[in-house]
Amino acid sequence: MVTTNALSEAFQATSIQLAGHGKRNIGVLKDVVESLDSETLSDIYGNGEIIEQFQVKMAAYLGKESAVFFPSGTMAQQIALRLWADKKKQKKVAYHPLCHLEIHEADGLKELHHLDVHLLGEENRVVTIHDLESMPTDVAVVLLELPQREIGGQLPEWEELVRMSSYCRTNGIYLHLDGARLYEILPYYGKTAAEVCELFDSAYISMYKGIGGIAGAILAGSDNFIQEAKVWKQRYGGNLISLYPYIVTANAYFDERHDKMPEYYENAKKLAQLFNTCAHIQTVPETPVSNMFHVHIDASKEELERIFTTVMKTTDIGITSYVKEMSDETLGFELSLGDQLGQIPETELENVFSLLRNAMNNL
Amino acid sequence: MVTTNALSEAFQATSIQLAGHGKRNIGVLKDVVESLDSETLSDIYGNGEIIEQFQVKMAAYLGKESAVFFPSGTMAQQIALRLWADKKKQKKVAYHPLCHLEIHEADGLKELHHLDVHLLGEENRVVTIHDLESMPTDVAVVLLELPQREIGGQLPEWEELVRMSSYCRTNGIYLHLDGARLYEILPYYGKTAAEVCELFDSAYISMYKGIGGIAGAILAGSDNFIQEAKVWKQRYGGNLISLYPYIVTANAYFDERHDKMPEYYENAKKLAQLFNTCAHIQTVPETPVSNMFHVHIDASKEELERIFTTVMKTTDIGITSYVKEMSDETLGFELSLGDQLGQIPETELENVFSLLRNAMNNL
Repeated sequence: MVTTNALSEAFQATSIQLAGHGKRNIGVLKDVVESLDSETLSDIYGNGEIIEQFQVKMAAYLGKESAVFFPSGTMAQQIALRLWADKKKQKKVAYHPLCHLEIHEADGLKELHHLDVHLLGEENRVVTIHDLESMPTDVAVVLLELPQREIGGQLPEWEELVRMSSYCRTNGIYLHLDGARLYEILPYYGKTAAEVCELFDSAYISMYKGIGGIAGAILAGSDNFIQEAKVWKQRYGGNLISLYPYIVTANAYFDERHDKMPEYYENAKKLAQLFNTCAHIQTVPETPVSNMFHVHIDASKEELERIFTTVMKTTDIGITSYVKEMSDETLGFELSLGDQLGQIPETELENVFSLLRNAMNNL
Repeated sequence: MVTTNALSEAFQATSIQLAGHGKRNIGVLKDVVESLDSETLSDIYGNGEIIEQFQVKMAAYLGKESAVFFPSGTMAQQIALRLWADKKKQKKVAYHPLCHLEIHEADGLKELHHLDVHLLGEENRVVTIHDLESMPTDVAVVLLELPQREIGGQLPEWEELVRMSSYCRTNGIYLHLDGARLYEILPYYGKTAAEVCELFDSAYISMYKGIGGIAGAILAGSDNFIQEAKVWKQRYGGNLISLYPYIVTANAYFDERHDKMPEYYENAKKLAQLFNTCAHIQTVPETPVSNMFHVHIDASKEELERIFTTVMKTTDIGITSYVKEMSDETLGFELSLGDQLGQIPETELENVFSLLRNAMNNL
């Protein structure tokens, strides 16, 4: 989606960006590794203090019996769904039409596990209790993604989520949480990670999205479930001799940032409001419920690339490196707030939006 | 296999070890990362200079059109066999009974791809041309592991290898190289990596075994084959947003060590000869053909643990952290030579074997 063009180059050249924690460069690794003791031993094929202690820490944070560190969420979630399907002896799984497994994994779930998929609800809204009530009766497991990334990070209300969880429990359907961005929704719900995960049989959480680690994922559930997940992790070639480069960074950035989610959430609401003061621009959701939102814009690609390139060159502040077709076919881009917005002086931020407002008004 | 006991503790306490490049600790990462530029950008989902340049470099080294970096050899090799089976439209693959895919991957190949396996030859010897000639006619691909790790790193003679390659080409059977330890056999064959790989349709090489990186693997083959392998890499969840911690270390240790293989090979022969001067001890192979060999010992586990613990405590030199049942059911352990042996003064090495000889003679 990201094309190397004037827009992308202008973005890369800026000193600071509205979204994120900063550039994905080797500094992210170096900053953490420099403070570590060289003598600390590597994990070895899933064993060793460095991985086991982190898994215990994350299991406690998520309120589950056990957790296992995976190189990727793709691997973790395919395995979770396979395990629940096997346990239920039913090959059907259900998730949102814009689920990561449906659109970003080259059909890994179907090609590797031959599971059938029932798509819940519609692309441009979150899954509801009614979508669950109208599922085929042979669904083994439902995956809910909180927040629903591809529609700007929308969420069901807490009461609706509780109703969906109860429905699954009552009907013997397993419920898995795609919590790639779980940290980021806790301020809106006003709940702990454990309180959200309590509604689910298993949960995955990303080690790089919200907290800004390098890569990796945690899958959490019962002791027995995680034992079985480890067998599949080995089958996938995910039980690397050493995963510690991802683990030490995940641990460091978790400690540094998981308590900053309320700040990112407040900044997301503030930034969305600024975008919404511009003609032809609308954020989705209008008021963010996490640290992320989508910016939808009614203008041509050429106009947008020209405007954003100019504003970024003028202000030295990065807005976006691309504009692409969003889920509702308007053009736009995604923003996930991190450490950086708070580092931009108010006056400079006002300047960005003053220029942007002028440019959009003149379209 | 490794039990935490007196033997293992004595080994961990030694200052230097006969085999390997040194301890697998965070220093292995730190030493490399400290010299890198913090501003160097991460790879992103398989794209970016840091991964693309290394892939080009390794493809050239292996004499193949294209290469792709994988987090693990397990993932790379399952995918290679699946691709050849699909291309041939036959579900049967053939490899040695002690192949990594057969004994170390929790049946990933069978569980994820439903391929059938024909085992070639017998456990305690390498695969021969006769094993290929007597295969079922519906084998799509043969995997040869050079050297055959589980029997001490044995090799077919070069002429036999050429014959096996010709047989496969003549009969339209694909040939894949499990070259986890490919660097290590080049001195014995007196060939370049590209000359060995030329006999094969695809090749995998480890980024941590011989050269001492942290983890990772390269799969090499034709452009088309590697394009398809990348799709499966995504399906497996192996196309991580960032693989650079493994790539930068693989690159650094490849540069540092791939030319040292003749030294490791000579040291392996010298060390095996020393072991073979001890009563009840025999190395497999008797004369190593790579940097590795197995030490087989006719004595009880208790005797061996006592003897090795004593010798290691006396000399401060690590021999082994374990003794286990080897493929022929005698007890023993594996050694893979690296930088360390060359750092041990002759007199100290003689002392180790003088003590060991005495102890073994008194059994």
